[in-house]
Amino acid sequence: MPSIPLTTPTARYDIVIGSGLLRTLFPRLCKLSNGKPFRPFIVTSPEIWELWSKSILASFPEPPTVLFLPSGEAHKRLASVEALAQQLATAGADRDSLLLALGGGVIGDITGFLAAIYMRGIPYVQLPSTLLAQVDSSIGGKTGVNLVAGKNLIGSFHHPLAVFADTDLLGTLPSAELRSGLQESVKAAIIRNPRLFRYLEQNSQAVLAGDADALTRVVAASVRVKADVVSQDELESGLRMILNFGHTIGHAIESATKYKQLLHGQAVGWGSIAAAHLSLSRGAITQNEFDRMVNLILLYGPLPAFTAKAAKLVELTGSDKKKRSGRRAFVLTTGIGSTEVVYDVTDAELLAATESMLARMQQVTSKPSARSRKK
Amino acid sequence: MPSIPLTTPTARYDIVIGSGLLRTLFPRLCKLSNGKPFRPFIVTSPEIWELWSKSILASFPEPPTVLFLPSGEAHKRLASVEALAQQLATAGADRDSLLLALGGGVIGDITGFLAAIYMRGIPYVQLPSTLLAQVDSSIGGKTGVNLVAGKNLIGSFHHPLAVFADTDLLGTLPSAELRSGLQESVKAAIIRNPRLFRYLEQNSQAVLAGDADALTRVVAASVRVKADVVSQDELESGLRMILNFGHTIGHAIESATKYKQLLHGQAVGWGSIAAAHLSLSRGAITQNEFDRMVNLILLYGPLPAFTAKAAKLVELTGSDKKKRSGRRAFVLTTGIGSTEVVYDVTDAELLAATESMLARMQQVTSKPSARSRKK
Repeated sequence: MPSIPLTTPTARYDIVIGSGLLRTLFPRLCKLSNGKPFRPFIVTSPEIWELWSKSILASFPEPPTVLFLPSGEAHKRLASVEALAQQLATAGADRDSLLLALGGGVIGDITGFLAAIYMRGIPYVQLPSTLLAQVDSSIGGKTGVNLVAGKNLIGSFHHPLAVFADTDLLGTLPSAELRSGLQESVKAAIIRNPRLFRYLEQNSQAVLAGDADALTRVVAASVRVKADVVSQDELESGLRMILNFGHTIGHAIESATKYKQLLHGQAVGWGSIAAAHLSLSRGAITQNEFDRMVNLILLYGPLPAFTAKAAKLVELTGSDKKKRSGRRAFVLTTGIGSTEVVYDVTDAELLAATESMLARMQQVTSKPSARSRKK
Repeated sequence: MPSIPLTTPTARYDIVIGSGLLRTLFPRLCKLSNGKPFRPFIVTSPEIWELWSKSILASFPEPPTVLFLPSGEAHKRLASVEALAQQLATAGADRDSLLLALGGGVIGDITGFLAAIYMRGIPYVQLPSTLLAQVDSSIGGKTGVNLVAGKNLIGSFHHPLAVFADTDLLGTLPSAELRSGLQESVKAAIIRNPRLFRYLEQNSQAVLAGDADALTRVVAASVRVKADVVSQDELESGLRMILNFGHTIGHAIESATKYKQLLHGQAVGWGSIAAAHLSLSRGAITQNEFDRMVNLILLYGPLPAFTAKAAKLVELTGSDKKKRSGRRAFVLTTGIGSTEVVYDVTDAELLAATESMLARMQQVTSKPSARSRKK
């Protein structure tokens, strides 16, 4: 079973990927806590608990306290964190408690942040239930919630004690969510792993069919990219920015469509196409590399169409957190598996790349049912 | 001007104590930021701003944005943090912004926490305006807010870039607040500084009259105790617990009186008397040491009387954050300037010590006007 270490100046933990992790959770937690007593609290949604409680409870000598969060980005707010904290306090949770985040990105981000600030920090473990959470959001210690003014504007760096990515959970995912998560794997391949890129090119059928071995391999390779980058730059002062490839325009698309039309990975897919256009126009990649990238992104589509003006999207990049004192950091691809962060991308360049991406969208006309939850 | 360094594995900064610091703030901030551009935001209360805006604005080339918080513990909640964060985002604050916490403990704790979680952490500077904040709460990186379930249950460790404790600010403090703050200095003396203990014994007139030199000396010595302890144990895993001398019963008193009857330092004063009783009953201190401690605490009173049963106070210590998996940490004094943290204090011992403290309270019958804001 792949176990990938993540090491930073302040934390050291493993991301374990495989089947049957939930069913053997309690002994794994005991090992993590080195025999010290701990009191587990599970944070999850009613839907996920309904599906997986039996597997989880099987390994626990007594059932842990379960705290519920409603699903969805709308609940990723300080009010949810406060309500959970109040429940923890009422249940007598202290610094020897252990939070278990069982869910997708929203639950992981909220629970991680709750763990970061409850009694100034208690430990937690990530149990990501979606592909997106397994390959991206559960790893790296970024936690937080949204403000009305913008996404993830409130948060902390707080690493989990471990991430257990149980690939059994992926079996119940709607196809669109699986494909959305795979866009982050495609991104990982573009920025840092040519081998994963080729694997994704050559094995799309098995991967998209949810073949267990193929998925485990893709998840593990994607996790390795992220863990490797975060290990080298925990606080996003440099290298970690490359993980935002495709996210400058991707975030703008999510904002322009009010986070309702596209899944995160779908927006990142379009954003990656825009970033590839910009890289091509600068001569940073060849036409052949560009074509392979765009083809791979679309292979893991369909990416649903949306309506937004290029100028509006560029305007929306202005509030990106990655801007520092007015300078916009932009991640270029400089070949399959390599990147460069630049600070001199002009609005005109970004506009041209966004327009090229929108023109491509017209060509590929995706089906309106693309975000359908049916498999 | 005394400048006391605080060094932890993750931070290194100075606590500067003296007159005229606010008037020379801007050049001091420029020095802190090493010439890098920064955008200052002041968080304060309307009352404090009314008194000190002129001094502060004098040194700024252009006026900084000012965000207001209403005064008082009731506003130390996540809702205040969210409202301030929203204002920061709307004003375009990014990671190169710098928050300035101008106020007492509540403003310092909220602003520090806001800085800890806005965009996952931005820098801030403490400008404590009360004696309590100057000698205690502004130092050490503990930040946070209250839950309905209890005080400071939500928070972060986030150190400021610097603390500028301008002693001019103490001139406008009501006498009761000055005396309340001095209880933390008495505590610092009891746990770690026999010289400060003697100075407080021998110079109470000058200190209580607000003599600038005497106050600077007391603030600097108290800060040194705290900075020294925090430097050795940033995250309160061991030594830092000694700073909670008097706080086990002190917090219980505040809770029993709903945080409305006593100032924090006054509750700590009574709590310190209870802790001294417990230490005496264990033979950890001599009768003479006990008498000197209680006399010094009362010298910096009056401590107002309150009504609470000893059993209730002991019960209220049960929710103390410092309990770990059911074990109560208790800080004993083992002589003037020395302490020991023990884990075997029984409820019966705590009850007896609390009853002795309450009996002492009957003897010293403080005036009902003790919390009056008049000088």
